[in-house]
Amino acid sequence: MTPGPLALSLGDPAGIGPEIVAKAWSALRESGPAFFVIGDAEVLAARGASTIETLSDPGQAKAAFPRVLPVLHSPVGAEVTPGRPSAAAAPAIIRWIEAGVELCLSGAAAGLVTAPIAKAPLYEAGFKFPGHTEFLGELTAAAPFEGARGPIMMLTAQDLRVTLVTVHAPLAKVPSLLSVDRIVETGLVTAQALRRDFGIAAPRLAVAGFNPHAGESGSIGREEVEIVVPAVAALRQAGVDAAGPYPADTLFPAEMRTRYDAALCIYHDQALIPVKMLDFWGGVNVTLGLPIVRTSPDHGTGFDIAGRGVARPDSLIAAIRLADQIARTRAA
Amino acid sequence: MTPGPLALSLGDPAGIGPEIVAKAWSALRESGPAFFVIGDAEVLAARGASTIETLSDPGQAKAAFPRVLPVLHSPVGAEVTPGRPSAAAAPAIIRWIEAGVELCLSGAAAGLVTAPIAKAPLYEAGFKFPGHTEFLGELTAAAPFEGARGPIMMLTAQDLRVTLVTVHAPLAKVPSLLSVDRIVETGLVTAQALRRDFGIAAPRLAVAGFNPHAGESGSIGREEVEIVVPAVAALRQAGVDAAGPYPADTLFPAEMRTRYDAALCIYHDQALIPVKMLDFWGGVNVTLGLPIVRTSPDHGTGFDIAGRGVARPDSLIAAIRLADQIARTRAA
Repeated sequence: MTPGPLALSLGDPAGIGPEIVAKAWSALRESGPAFFVIGDAEVLAARGASTIETLSDPGQAKAAFPRVLPVLHSPVGAEVTPGRPSAAAAPAIIRWIEAGVELCLSGAAAGLVTAPIAKAPLYEAGFKFPGHTEFLGELTAAAPFEGARGPIMMLTAQDLRVTLVTVHAPLAKVPSLLSVDRIVETGLVTAQALRRDFGIAAPRLAVAGFNPHAGESGSIGREEVEIVVPAVAALRQAGVDAAGPYPADTLFPAEMRTRYDAALCIYHDQALIPVKMLDFWGGVNVTLGLPIVRTSPDHGTGFDIAGRGVARPDSLIAAIRLADQIARTRAA
Repeated sequence: MTPGPLALSLGDPAGIGPEIVAKAWSALRESGPAFFVIGDAEVLAARGASTIETLSDPGQAKAAFPRVLPVLHSPVGAEVTPGRPSAAAAPAIIRWIEAGVELCLSGAAAGLVTAPIAKAPLYEAGFKFPGHTEFLGELTAAAPFEGARGPIMMLTAQDLRVTLVTVHAPLAKVPSLLSVDRIVETGLVTAQALRRDFGIAAPRLAVAGFNPHAGESGSIGREEVEIVVPAVAALRQAGVDAAGPYPADTLFPAEMRTRYDAALCIYHDQALIPVKMLDFWGGVNVTLGLPIVRTSPDHGTGFDIAGRGVARPDSLIAAIRLADQIARTRAA
């Protein structure tokens, strides 16, 4: 079965989203995967998308894709100036994401790729979620899903996959957020996604420690002894091939990356330092444990360079390709 | 002026030290730099060093080096079994380090390279320092030194140099250890060492943040706003070309590494993840701000593989080469 086209929500129209979407279409129009944009066709046209066709039905997107950038037009209803985010655009930005989720849940789209949003203008307009990931968890909460449910954030770069136990917490608060349950939940969702979404029959997880040298048996911090070690044991008990905790500095050299399919990271920079070193431009963010397929670039809205035509579409293109792969694996 | 030979303290004789010292001599005997070992000649012979000559005077080491591994023999006075550390060896291990420092301070050695030690057996014997670095700070405290005094730990790998504001503290304690003064002191010692020891006339420092996204102006943790930002300002006031705080995940990709001569890292893994990714085998530890030149491999005693002949000497060889370079730069 060939999955349908991917839906791509335009994100903040004052950011680099419209430019990189236009560039991604140029790069992919011949080879695919096919996608259609949910957003404002006029904004896209003003920011470099020369050949656009507005659709009434996502079913037309695949046939149109090699010829034009297909858009499910939904006007922003506000003035858009590149580099100047505005709360007036927030309702449209949120609507585009919601529409993407609905099309995925109905089967009209094979997956959702989200262009970047910025928190500040959305918060001004009453948005209550830390980011896309949590919002998508909420939007899909009523949809059926078998197994361990997320959302859990995964990042990919080259041969590396990492999932995050904590994401945007202040580092000093991470110890109080850590628990055996939280690590186990992250591990279960990760292992399940490696099977279902990445086609890895017997996934291997490597769990990072929190402290230098993974705490050296408790002499440099107690989080490993009290939380991470029991969590790894519980994961193994649950049938997951998990190992660790490993000292984080030993986990990411090439020699080690061959020994696991995903690394479970305790905090943001432990995961993001290796991801950005391996692929500064092409890292991809994947949400695991959702009823829908969802990926996004691993960068932000780039307001500082928006409208200048210099933004690189590498990460968005990688996100589109990965969403397509996951959709095919799920459909197989 | 050609500097004298380097002194190499043997470290824990039950670890991989004796093996990698013998391998390093084989690799360097023709090209140099010349070094002599301070340690037990019989242990070295038993662990693969086939041609040894015991010296009475380090002044003979340079001439002897192409032909034999020169050793300033100082018996361990205890049974040595590879992989089985013993507190009985501790007095000798400590004496070898002290002798190395004395020879550097007297000018008989150009610098000290230390093979790895392990904390547990030394602590059993009453050793009170967290590691080599602090012990060397104490041993050289009375020697004259102009400028900002350390010890500050630097690690090097390929084109990357990092210095550490905190080293082996539990990560949860790092916020309470951070202060403007501590970061400024690390920055002053680093900038001075880049000039004196690395020959960089106008060194540029990049300072890492502590929290994800370097705290996003205080919305993800306050350490940047309250401590790191004022420290960077104070360093600039003191004439140091310092910038930051930068989000740690953006600081280590190749594109960024060209923009600074050293990165100041707030905690251990922030520094060590990139170092080990760039050079898993050949990273070097350098102590900055000491009256003597001191480097070491960036790995431990390797008790688990000691005596099997498989330990790689890459990091020790890189440490010997770097000590020689620094000694030449200081002497120039």
